[in-house]
Amino acid sequence: MTIAILGGTGPQGQGLALRFARSGVAVALGSRDAERAHAIAEDLNAKLTEAGGSFTAITGADNINAAQSAERMVMLAVPFAAHEATLEEVRAALDGKILVDVVVPLEQGNPRGYGPPPEGSATEAAQKLLGEGVKVVGALHNVSAHSLNDLPTPINCDVFVCGDDLAAKEEVQALIEGIGVQTYDAGPAKSARCVEAITPLLIRLNISKKVPFSHAGVRIWAPGH
Amino acid sequence: MTIAILGGTGPQGQGLALRFARSGVAVALGSRDAERAHAIAEDLNAKLTEAGGSFTAITGADNINAAQSAERMVMLAVPFAAHEATLEEVRAALDGKILVDVVVPLEQGNPRGYGPPPEGSATEAAQKLLGEGVKVVGALHNVSAHSLNDLPTPINCDVFVCGDDLAAKEEVQALIEGIGVQTYDAGPAKSARCVEAITPLLIRLNISKKVPFSHAGVRIWAPGH
Repeated sequence: MTIAILGGTGPQGQGLALRFARSGVAVALGSRDAERAHAIAEDLNAKLTEAGGSFTAITGADNINAAQSAERMVMLAVPFAAHEATLEEVRAALDGKILVDVVVPLEQGNPRGYGPPPEGSATEAAQKLLGEGVKVVGALHNVSAHSLNDLPTPINCDVFVCGDDLAAKEEVQALIEGIGVQTYDAGPAKSARCVEAITPLLIRLNISKKVPFSHAGVRIWAPGH
Repeated sequence: MTIAILGGTGPQGQGLALRFARSGVAVALGSRDAERAHAIAEDLNAKLTEAGGSFTAITGADNINAAQSAERMVMLAVPFAAHEATLEEVRAALDGKILVDVVVPLEQGNPRGYGPPPEGSATEAAQKLLGEGVKVVGALHNVSAHSLNDLPTPINCDVFVCGDDLAAKEEVQALIEGIGVQTYDAGPAKSARCVEAITPLLIRLNISKKVPFSHAGVRIWAPGH
């Protein structure tokens, strides 16, 4: 299976590519600039080789070709400012597939604030734009890019998955559990309002001088532990 | 020091009263019905006696008298439907004090959804209603009532504190850390939009048959742990 990661040359996209490649999934890294996608794919393959262990090689392409090469799942990891334009660009290649929306709409000029679009969340905006032919699943919003790129270290964050199609969510949960994280079904696309909003909280803690660590994650905790 | 807990006869209020009483803080439990507040305070004192260890006795009163008896901090733990009316009722007793707003606005008829007021969050609505003479601090939104009431068990949840006055937040953080939880400064009152929204996510997991536990909490997690 090949998955596409659009906006895959950014820190979040690169980290996701590394983790999925190491879990045995073929990744097509997408960018507006195919040359840059290709170069970064080579860098990531070198990093995986150096880290040791098996992996499936990452390839690079422009966003449209990357989306076309994915049979089932296309992941979107662009900044929110490019969310709508990238979806418009690739929508023909998404039909019948699952779009995994990783994007968090932060406030303009303030990454410590949540600035959702009129639809309520990025995931809801994507589902509205793409229509019923594409199943949108929001996921992986709260995982730190730094943690994803730090291959020897397990990921310090649970993942909330939301969307209006149960089977699509389960498929995405299975994919994500392959990189060693706990996932939770957080409900319909509308729940993305709650899930995306956790990211600016984490960014605030990462910036804060009062918190003795950065790259914070969030975990669901059972009683008595 | 005496703190008031308004709406203190509900499960969240009772649990908070137990935890603060055991940390050595005098609690005035407030209710619309003073008789009921008094009876429940007696029940809670009996529960604390049975649990063993030291505690400061809980007293019961109507909401206004409870708020008046608090020198510095009044906690609001009513359902969101009673949020505005309770604040209107007690506002004269709040002047110059800190209001600790624990209230989460859930969707009408759907506790798995976040249904914030036009102000953006309950904390922001309270600050707007009360004006500058009262410092509103949002806190303790995500802690399960069941966990609070289960005295022998440590609380399985970190606490995000938000509000526009730094000194007030620090005072509330110190109070809350006294019951053995980790607190984080989550920023201004506006951050309450992100913090309150975690509660419906936790409620969803608690209801879900796919999650093998209830009364979930949320924890901030450093990398490498």
